[in-house]
Amino acid sequence: MRKVGSTRESTWPRIRAAGVDLLYEFGYDAMNTRRLAESADLTSSALYYHFKSKEDFLFRLLSDLLEEIVDDLESALAATPESDPVARLDTFVRILVKWHVTRHKETFIASIETRALSRDRHLAYSELRDRFDLNLHKILAQGEESGDFAVIDVTLTSASLLAMLTAISGWYDPAGPLGLEEITAGYVELARRLAGVVTST
Amino acid sequence: MRKVGSTRESTWPRIRAAGVDLLYEFGYDAMNTRRLAESADLTSSALYYHFKSKEDFLFRLLSDLLEEIVDDLESALAATPESDPVARLDTFVRILVKWHVTRHKETFIASIETRALSRDRHLAYSELRDRFDLNLHKILAQGEESGDFAVIDVTLTSASLLAMLTAISGWYDPAGPLGLEEITAGYVELARRLAGVVTST
Repeated sequence: MRKVGSTRESTWPRIRAAGVDLLYEFGYDAMNTRRLAESADLTSSALYYHFKSKEDFLFRLLSDLLEEIVDDLESALAATPESDPVARLDTFVRILVKWHVTRHKETFIASIETRALSRDRHLAYSELRDRFDLNLHKILAQGEESGDFAVIDVTLTSASLLAMLTAISGWYDPAGPLGLEEITAGYVELARRLAGVVTST
Repeated sequence: MRKVGSTRESTWPRIRAAGVDLLYEFGYDAMNTRRLAESADLTSSALYYHFKSKEDFLFRLLSDLLEEIVDDLESALAATPESDPVARLDTFVRILVKWHVTRHKETFIASIETRALSRDRHLAYSELRDRFDLNLHKILAQGEESGDFAVIDVTLTSASLLAMLTAISGWYDPAGPLGLEEITAGYVELARRLAGVVTST
């Protein structure tokens, strides 16, 4: 049984925060684990107690993030009526915008560095990532069936929607004119247009 | 005056083709110039006669590609009536889809590796890249003014359109079910929806 507040668990958020800044600034290949240890206020050997390798660290960072987003998305969808595809699409957009705006550094890192993962880990990550596509496909297909949407092509529409949502982390600027609320409102409307929402709600 | 077919010029397409395959497979950081020389059937010193550094090679590859796309886009727009924003939007989409499908390896590399460029080169590249945004902004603003479009927000709409178009190089599979024609038709329709084309043409 792991003790609550054990060193291992309380150190992770500090390593994670330091790592996100370094990965965002330098990229994975140029990131230096000696510097990561310094920024997290650890010795290199203490860091290697937590992680066997730099890739080990990257994998935990990316998979933790992805799990949190998938959990948040699926809870939000579970709380949205199955019978209302427009509300479900709005929920999908709202959750993805929120994560890409409030954690734009981490989501940007995830969009660039997943290919640095080993083959097995890349597969594990991709399986978790496919849950976004699956959820979105289901929403689009359901709305098409109920007559709420007039979808052009489920594959192209869901690829487009995911691309425009994940791209937010690339251009979002916390000091820029658009905040979470405006971006969410804009994307909800754009997503409804892409899905061909038939009646305005 | 440079001789037509000089060694320097006739060797470039071979280096470029070899480099694209290596960059696509391994990524810039892991790409090895010794292997690039081998694949292009050159000695390492012959390669270094053409390029001072790996970054020099990457910059020529990316800026050549971007110049070709911008030239193609701007010629196509020049041949599309100024007074027809819907046709201009269609042209924009058609050209971008064509490049991302027919040159999906290079456009994928461009989407990932630009940050490996030195600061000055990154700026030069970004200025050229901004021409896409400028052209798209102009089309959207013009269609809004003429009443052909009902744009939600020019910034969000153009960022979304560019993101969904550039993402094609990430998912496009030459062996997959969707060809250039289907993808173009689908994206033209999706772009019209995003722009809020008021009358169907």
